[in-house]
Amino acid sequence: MLDESYIQITHQLAEKGKGAVSPLSLRGVVIVNDGKIVGAEFLKDRLSEQPEFILFSKLKNIPKGSVLYSNINPVIKSGEEERYISLFRNSGIKKMVFGVLDNNSLFYNKVAKKLKENGISVISGIMERESADLNRFFLKYSSSKLPFVTLKMALTLDGKISDINGNSKWITSVESRSLVHELRTEYDAVLVGYNTVKTDKPSLTVRLVEGRNPKRIVLDTRLELKPNSDLVRKNNDNNLIIVTDKKNKDMPKLAKYYEAGVEFIFVPVTSEGMLDLKSLVRKLGKLNITSILVEGGGRVFSSFIKSKLDDEILLFIAPKLLCEGIPLCSGLGINSLSKAHKFQMNDVRKIGEDALIRLTRR
Amino acid sequence: MLDESYIQITHQLAEKGKGAVSPLSLRGVVIVNDGKIVGAEFLKDRLSEQPEFILFSKLKNIPKGSVLYSNINPVIKSGEEERYISLFRNSGIKKMVFGVLDNNSLFYNKVAKKLKENGISVISGIMERESADLNRFFLKYSSSKLPFVTLKMALTLDGKISDINGNSKWITSVESRSLVHELRTEYDAVLVGYNTVKTDKPSLTVRLVEGRNPKRIVLDTRLELKPNSDLVRKNNDNNLIIVTDKKNKDMPKLAKYYEAGVEFIFVPVTSEGMLDLKSLVRKLGKLNITSILVEGGGRVFSSFIKSKLDDEILLFIAPKLLCEGIPLCSGLGINSLSKAHKFQMNDVRKIGEDALIRLTRR
Repeated sequence: MLDESYIQITHQLAEKGKGAVSPLSLRGVVIVNDGKIVGAEFLKDRLSEQPEFILFSKLKNIPKGSVLYSNINPVIKSGEEERYISLFRNSGIKKMVFGVLDNNSLFYNKVAKKLKENGISVISGIMERESADLNRFFLKYSSSKLPFVTLKMALTLDGKISDINGNSKWITSVESRSLVHELRTEYDAVLVGYNTVKTDKPSLTVRLVEGRNPKRIVLDTRLELKPNSDLVRKNNDNNLIIVTDKKNKDMPKLAKYYEAGVEFIFVPVTSEGMLDLKSLVRKLGKLNITSILVEGGGRVFSSFIKSKLDDEILLFIAPKLLCEGIPLCSGLGINSLSKAHKFQMNDVRKIGEDALIRLTRR
Repeated sequence: MLDESYIQITHQLAEKGKGAVSPLSLRGVVIVNDGKIVGAEFLKDRLSEQPEFILFSKLKNIPKGSVLYSNINPVIKSGEEERYISLFRNSGIKKMVFGVLDNNSLFYNKVAKKLKENGISVISGIMERESADLNRFFLKYSSSKLPFVTLKMALTLDGKISDINGNSKWITSVESRSLVHELRTEYDAVLVGYNTVKTDKPSLTVRLVEGRNPKRIVLDTRLELKPNSDLVRKNNDNNLIIVTDKKNKDMPKLAKYYEAGVEFIFVPVTSEGMLDLKSLVRKLGKLNITSILVEGGGRVFSSFIKSKLDDEILLFIAPKLLCEGIPLCSGLGINSLSKAHKFQMNDVRKIGEDALIRLTRR
């Protein structure tokens, strides 16, 4: 088999850790000897040992001349380097092949060199684009300490996210909505504005598919979300985070929220009266949140676009025309086509009755 | 080879007649004997004989037991039935296989029965959907005497067709614009509103690809298009048609347009001050126009949607956000999601930097 095929297998293994490994990377590892896979493992959650450690203790003997394949290098904690290197020195592995290397890692900056000194060759760049895409949350976070931000919106062909009464249930088909629930299991957090909470009353949990709930972040400048609202009352998993004006820090009513296990993030308000999103994403990064799925509404979407904080946009376009309704975005003051925000379409496909477009900034 | 494969070959042949055969159908014919194609022909233009007539005179001898394949039945004019039947009676053809049958045709209603009486079996429904799709202009026209109407628009992700100053050059990529020029070669007519003429100054001709120009229809309620405008002055192919309020029928200035070879269609104006599109499409049908590509702008698009006169919609969606700008549609008075105009997505794909979505009403 080609190197590419083994890396592809590590992708499939790595994906099993989705939603569980953050803030670490999704990792699959296979060990191959003489064209035969002698061991396969993946990172199961953030508390697990790296897959090669598990494999080394599971396999009695790794045949001489074996090759280790992985989609990305391991996350090695400071102080663990020696243990890692000595394990390899005493194993039969002569070569390591990676999809992508995280060049902010201890592995890249220190361990790889020592492995080479011990006669183990280390190469990378096999299916690099796919490997980097699979770990785009991790790689963004590793390099910037900021979460990867995906803006997800459901809209009509003419760019409306709800009718003139604010009703958006349901613009898109059940297949699209199921995919959104699946996405929620993969992101560390979902984020909406208070307006969306008020009109849509979303639970922001995972229901249409199996999987764990992400953190639920509500942007609420004036702290309007009531302590007896569903979101606060049903916070059994303690995943609710309210982001509000830092001036609200000492409000007596905060106690009621704290009792319900709600976390608060206090950020400044900009001169335009909006919560400072740059400050917010920095704070979320410090909380080890490596990925956010921003689910609306239009004002929140527009603010993220304006701040250029989006790493990726997912648009679910339903085959409907409303012509009147709430627009996807507004208030950006773009008065000419040449000043439009420009993206590239990475993927265009049909999902259920809808189209799904995946974009990144160009 | 399977019947399907032969019908597929007739599709490829038939497509060579695109833009030339209207108001007849696109037709390819192959004659097969003992697994070998002994003759292949297609309808070249509206004045040509049907392909089987040409094949019968070209081929000296059609072996006994041959099968004729075609994507659709021939258009046989009244009085031609006997000639058609006798040609087949005296040929070696024992069977005819069609993709789709036009059940408004003389062939379907009269000729097929007589062929069967003469021992020639006639079957249809092989790749029927694809065959019907290939001749969707013809089949609509044959059944209703109305042209097939395609609404084509270029827009941003948020449903804007131009910036707030009306500038739309260029929202989409050159690949999308080339495809539009290719479409123009296939439609009998393109249609725009006077507003679009005023702001975009489109020539509405085919330039980015090879092919003949379609009729150019301008909706101009108050006859504002000037006789010295480019569209009128450069009407060398006499393809320009102006549609205006029937009250303008006796305006003295019409003479200037007639001198430039411009045709007029006079239609009533509705209580909302719009040209009556239902009346217009009936009149276009009477002029043997079997297909129209409606190219905007937003008001014209909205009027066609409101009148439900669209047979198909093509949306070229550019990876841009304007947030401010001229909307795809407006003035339809849709106040709830349940009343949205609903479509089905027949095709979703990438073209150049854009997405192309093809829709029909559901």
